[in-house]
Amino acid sequence: MEVFSLDKMARFRPEKMAKVDVVSSERMICGLNCFEPGQTQKVHAHAGADKLYYVLEGRGEFAVDAETRTLGRGELLYVPENVPHGVTNTGAERLVVAIVIAPNLFK
Amino acid sequence: MEVFSLDKMARFRPEKMAKVDVVSSERMICGLNCFEPGQTQKVHAHAGADKLYYVLEGRGEFAVDAETRTLGRGELLYVPENVPHGVTNTGAERLVVAIVIAPNLFK
Repeated sequence: MEVFSLDKMARFRPEKMAKVDVVSSERMICGLNCFEPGQTQKVHAHAGADKLYYVLEGRGEFAVDAETRTLGRGELLYVPENVPHGVTNTGAERLVVAIVIAPNLFK
Repeated sequence: MEVFSLDKMARFRPEKMAKVDVVSSERMICGLNCFEPGQTQKVHAHAGADKLYYVLEGRGEFAVDAETRTLGRGELLYVPENVPHGVTNTGAERLVVAIVIAPNLFK
């Protein structure tokens, strides 16, 4: 049985946002994006795959297309295929975000 | 920008587990499964789709194939395609679980 305690899986890198793989198949990938204060995931898009961001810890600025919003713990963001999106940890605390991408483009 | 405060979206039904749709496309469906104490989602399987359960609130007994475990807030369960799975709220509190199914079999 594949159970993961997401809160305990965050890992950080001093030089850039850290990605943690949680579980994946051809149909989806689930992982964590872990940001120290000031770290950024630059704007990018996924052709043919949708993405969910779910904030587990901290607060950050999420950009989707031309819109930017600050999201915090417990908020879910849906990004459809092909739509540019990015994240910046504009807060003073660490930011941990669970992500799901479906289908898995990286396999 | 499609943002959802999952903690505020739970809905309950006295007669059975309540499902709340959050967001969906052809590629994935995201929602909530909301259980009063004692309510059950009977064992079932999804042909050709994977599922994630993420416990937002409460505790429950999750069955996957022949194995059963009690999971609580912050725990993620991955169920691959075709594998039988079910949930029972064995606790005294309400159980709220976020789910993702990919691809979306119900569209």
